[in-house]
Amino acid sequence: MTQPMPFVSDNAASVHPNIWEAMRAADNPDMPYDGDRQSAILDERFSELFGRECAALWVATGTAANCLALGTLVQPHGGVVCHREAHVEVDEGGAPGFYLHGAKLMLADGNSAKLKPSDIAAVVEPIRDDVHQVQPHAISITQASEYGCSYNAQELSELGAYANMRGLGIHMDGARFANAVAFLDCAPAEAVGPCDTLSFGFIKNGGLGSEAVILFDPARADEVRYRRKRAGHLQCKGRYLAAQILAMLDGDLWLENARSANAAAAEIAGACGERLIHPVEANEIFMRCTAAERDSLRAQDFEFYDWGDDAARFVTAWNTPQEHAVALAKAIAAL
Amino acid sequence: MTQPMPFVSDNAASVHPNIWEAMRAADNPDMPYDGDRQSAILDERFSELFGRECAALWVATGTAANCLALGTLVQPHGGVVCHREAHVEVDEGGAPGFYLHGAKLMLADGNSAKLKPSDIAAVVEPIRDDVHQVQPHAISITQASEYGCSYNAQELSELGAYANMRGLGIHMDGARFANAVAFLDCAPAEAVGPCDTLSFGFIKNGGLGSEAVILFDPARADEVRYRRKRAGHLQCKGRYLAAQILAMLDGDLWLENARSANAAAAEIAGACGERLIHPVEANEIFMRCTAAERDSLRAQDFEFYDWGDDAARFVTAWNTPQEHAVALAKAIAAL
Amino acid sequence: MTQPMPFVSDNAASVHPNIWEAMRAADNPDMPYDGDRQSAILDERFSELFGRECAALWVATGTAANCLALGTLVQPHGGVVCHREAHVEVDEGGAPGFYLHGAKLMLADGNSAKLKPSDIAAVVEPIRDDVHQVQPHAISITQASEYGCSYNAQELSELGAYANMRGLGIHMDGARFANAVAFLDCAPAEAVGPCDTLSFGFIKNGGLGSEAVILFDPARADEVRYRRKRAGHLQCKGRYLAAQILAMLDGDLWLENARSANAAAAEIAGACGERLIHPVEANEIFMRCTAAERDSLRAQDFEFYDWGDDAARFVTAWNTPQEHAVALAKAIAAL
Amino acid sequence: MTQPMPFVSDNAASVHPNIWEAMRAADNPDMPYDGDRQSAILDERFSELFGRECAALWVATGTAANCLALGTLVQPHGGVVCHREAHVEVDEGGAPGFYLHGAKLMLADGNSAKLKPSDIAAVVEPIRDDVHQVQPHAISITQASEYGCSYNAQELSELGAYANMRGLGIHMDGARFANAVAFLDCAPAEAVGPCDTLSFGFIKNGGLGSEAVILFDPARADEVRYRRKRAGHLQCKGRYLAAQILAMLDGDLWLENARSANAAAAEIAGACGERLIHPVEANEIFMRCTAAERDSLRAQDFEFYDWGDDAARFVTAWNTPQEHAVALAKAIAAL
Repeated sequence: MTQPMPFVSDNAASVHPNIWEAMRAADNPDMPYDGDRQSAILDERFSELFGRECAALWVATGTAANCLALGTLVQPHGGVVCHREAHVEVDEGGAPGFYLHGAKLMLADGNSAKLKPSDIAAVVEPIRDDVHQVQPHAISITQASEYGCSYNAQELSELGAYANMRGLGIHMDGARFANAVAFLDCAPAEAVGPCDTLSFGFIKNGGLGSEAVILFDPARADEVRYRRKRAGHLQCKGRYLAAQILAMLDGDLWLENARSANAAAAEIAGACGERLIHPVEANEIFMRCTAAERDSLRAQDFEFYDWGDDAARFVTAWNTPQEHAVALAKAIAAL
Repeated sequence: MTQPMPFVSDNAASVHPNIWEAMRAADNPDMPYDGDRQSAILDERFSELFGRECAALWVATGTAANCLALGTLVQPHGGVVCHREAHVEVDEGGAPGFYLHGAKLMLADGNSAKLKPSDIAAVVEPIRDDVHQVQPHAISITQASEYGCSYNAQELSELGAYANMRGLGIHMDGARFANAVAFLDCAPAEAVGPCDTLSFGFIKNGGLGSEAVILFDPARADEVRYRRKRAGHLQCKGRYLAAQILAMLDGDLWLENARSANAAAAEIAGACGERLIHPVEANEIFMRCTAAERDSLRAQDFEFYDWGDDAARFVTAWNTPQEHAVALAKAIAAL
Repeated sequence: MTQPMPFVSDNAASVHPNIWEAMRAADNPDMPYDGDRQSAILDERFSELFGRECAALWVATGTAANCLALGTLVQPHGGVVCHREAHVEVDEGGAPGFYLHGAKLMLADGNSAKLKPSDIAAVVEPIRDDVHQVQPHAISITQASEYGCSYNAQELSELGAYANMRGLGIHMDGARFANAVAFLDCAPAEAVGPCDTLSFGFIKNGGLGSEAVILFDPARADEVRYRRKRAGHLQCKGRYLAAQILAMLDGDLWLENARSANAAAAEIAGACGERLIHPVEANEIFMRCTAAERDSLRAQDFEFYDWGDDAARFVTAWNTPQEHAVALAKAIAAL
Repeated sequence: MTQPMPFVSDNAASVHPNIWEAMRAADNPDMPYDGDRQSAILDERFSELFGRECAALWVATGTAANCLALGTLVQPHGGVVCHREAHVEVDEGGAPGFYLHGAKLMLADGNSAKLKPSDIAAVVEPIRDDVHQVQPHAISITQASEYGCSYNAQELSELGAYANMRGLGIHMDGARFANAVAFLDCAPAEAVGPCDTLSFGFIKNGGLGSEAVILFDPARADEVRYRRKRAGHLQCKGRYLAAQILAMLDGDLWLENARSANAAAAEIAGACGERLIHPVEANEIFMRCTAAERDSLRAQDFEFYDWGDDAARFVTAWNTPQEHAVALAKAIAAL
């Protein structure tokens, strides 16, 4: 039997060698928690990357990153508008309810798991402005979206205008922010637009266990540091988490990895034609296909998720071999 | 200038080579989260270790481990009796309040940060049995204690009898459980006694970022798995956390490391004589000394914490060089 | 100008004279909180009413009653299936999120704000049985529903079978339970069916500020008593709340009041014909009508809510004068 | 047998006739919740009373009032310094933990359950300014204190200076604020001093079930209104609660009632001499006495609480008959 060719998810991929190297290099004792020299320069490094002052904190998971970031934008008695299929709603085991002390997720619809101002307005506008109804405090969007679609600068600007008009904060779940930036081929600042907070994901992009919470209002960092500790997320050997992130930023490894994953996705997407359900603007492909077709692909050693009854999801990773992508493209073309 | 000799804490020590090796060996993709083959055998491995059925879950910090474990023993409207200087009270940034939804820590006094039934009774017995007062649901003890003292089997058995009589659960914060077992030179089961849950620490003992929550009532594991996810502590590359723990269990590395740290502590303790504030029953030494004496030690490149105005705390680690311990012992003797 | 004829809501109606009388009669000092003689017999009185053992606690609002009752059925990491337009979701300011520590309301669709097993299954069945998704722990239904429709014994029995099969508890929001029982003309036990908990409303039915939380598993009462206190809902002069409820039960005043309100509603419904949006099975009428028609009714001194753009809601109360109902019926017939 | 003479507590006393009258007068339907005309003028009435702009909200219990007020001063990751015997710590069933989402009560010692800056400093100053330790956000004091002692303007001013220096908010639990004002014989504003929030109690002073949350920063009122609803404390017939408070303010009934209770307490205190444990500065007397002496008093039909083994607590109320107070004073003198 041949080797399986995994397109199930990018969340279990191997760790990039640079990350291992950086972690090993951090093995010399330093101050515990986030008192080490590497944690200390995160703010500066991300401020450079985004071209504006921001604060950056490492945390072990995207779920924690999202929840800690959202905590700066919503009070316990408020709500967060997000897409009905947003990760925070569907795949975080109710973590926002826990971290936000019972604040409410308000579910909006939108194409390809993206939200436009009108999608948000459809949720927000009917809410009566009285204490009997939970009031929205913030919006959460995902870049790239749960269907692998990216928000461009224009779309973000429109969201910003709406949020501003309604007095809402904006959080960006950037579990695949790197893939969005790589696809948009723009400055990171452009891909984050008017957002107040960003969960900048590295784990799906070749990291081990370190994401960055980015606060574009650094005055909120102190509060988030307390909340991170309170959530049991202040690791005592934090230098190993900082080192992962710094290794990702060095030489733009994060972008290089994302470009590699996106290229593999583009290769596959090229073979899908009319079968594509969503535009491929990151590293995920959602493709219409029958159960028999999926069986056929699996018989050829491709691993992936069914997406309902008549579709499949393929996810590429930073280390997806070019020949796997080509093979899958061919197999799809041959269906 | 000579190399500093760190006795500040065991929480920032380097990672044991076996741990690195095991993590690298886990680099092959496997199922995400805790679906991998290594996470899958944790229950079995700890059940063997303790000679009774238990469930075991990895988590990145001792704080999270303590809070998730306590969550099985106390309801939000209840309380947890712990020592006034317990880590959960003093050093976890209010995490128990967060995880337990506002349950109350009830502070007891006791020698060397250990609790006897009478210490607990002094807190519990005056509580009126009415709804105006928070009722105790559980006890939390630390093995070894925050002052480096261990509970022996007899002491644990007495605590168990009291807890049983009052209908209280018992949690053990085992951030330095290994050091306690090494000191007591007993079976792990004996060092855990009647406890319902244990936070089994590995990070201070040469690990990187993985502790084990042990549930001696495995029926509660399902609930804890949901709560771990909800707290943002279900890492997607969980195999790297499982691998750390398994490497610690293999060949009893955890015990070997702890014995090494304890031996260094014993070496130093031997020089302290009457200066010792607490018996040295793990890897921490609390020693009376003047500010001038501390200055003198620091001038000799020893690093450590002041403990109030007239004492110092020295902590040894799995990798404290024998020569450092000997040097410190000599320097203390020469004070 | 004539007197306004209010059909806005039953929630601001005057208090029934018997209630005033009972409160005044409770003016003699007694034990504080719920230690008084009237609070002490609530369990017994409701156990008689329902023909089975239950516990009963007074509380000042329906929102608190719902939340305290739900707290016995759902853990913080779980969810409660309710109708998309249920009061707990739409009109309680996020109280369930607060009381249930972030548990999730899972929104189902169903005709007339009622839920059938298939409605619940449509929400529950797609939930993956893994920790990434919040699992349902309970169902909440409203009797009579937010659209004034009642569940009959058969419907309740079907819900019970489904809940049982899925291991879900059932809570009944009975803000207008009296109106449902009056409409169904059945024993209270039949109108509550397999529910585990009931918020038995009295305030909309002529009370002042006292509802009953009914627990059909009285073993849970102790926990709810602690949680009531913890929520600041244990009033120190609780005898005035108990007195209100007992006055309602005496001579079945609760039923008499509800029958009176229902009769007024039936009178009006009789004039609505095809305009009715929902069957009138309690004391609420939802009627299609144009803005001009609503203006016409208001010009005749009828007060009521618009219900969207092309409907009106009329609610009758225990003290709606017969002539008001007749007048409204005539006015509607004349539209 | 003679009539019992109750000195157990003021919390179960009868309701003042003016309150009943005002409630009955509110029986005409008005807007529900706090939309009625009486709720609408609370802000104005209390602003007059305190001579500065403030917001005022009714709520059914002192526990809820305290917790809602504290919620404006402390974040979930912060702490509230209060006296070890403060009502919020000892007698509210953990409500602050619930309402404040796990914020921590930090217990200070102080004579007669009052706090001086040095008492607070003893708790606050040792707290390390790092994320491992919960940081204080606010102070809560009780006026009159749990031992019936009042803070004068000078003492309040000193507390204000300390709080200001440390950036802490101050909450005043005024369950017996009226008795303090009556004792101090000062303007209400003087008795509240630099506090940011006040729970203004009426229930112990002849009310039925309505206290006022006073916010001296009215900008916070909106948030508290949402939180009140979320806590299930927005009663739909709120006009009956507003009416109680307005009746108390009319003609300074609140002061008249408090003066009456204080006078009775002073009468009794006059007989206690050296037996007094705390100065009597409100309506509570704590008196040293033996078990035999307590038996003797009880044999004379006086009802009261034991306070530990060698003391008794007597509480007078707005309606304590002069002859009861005189009788008790005589009986004490005769011990």
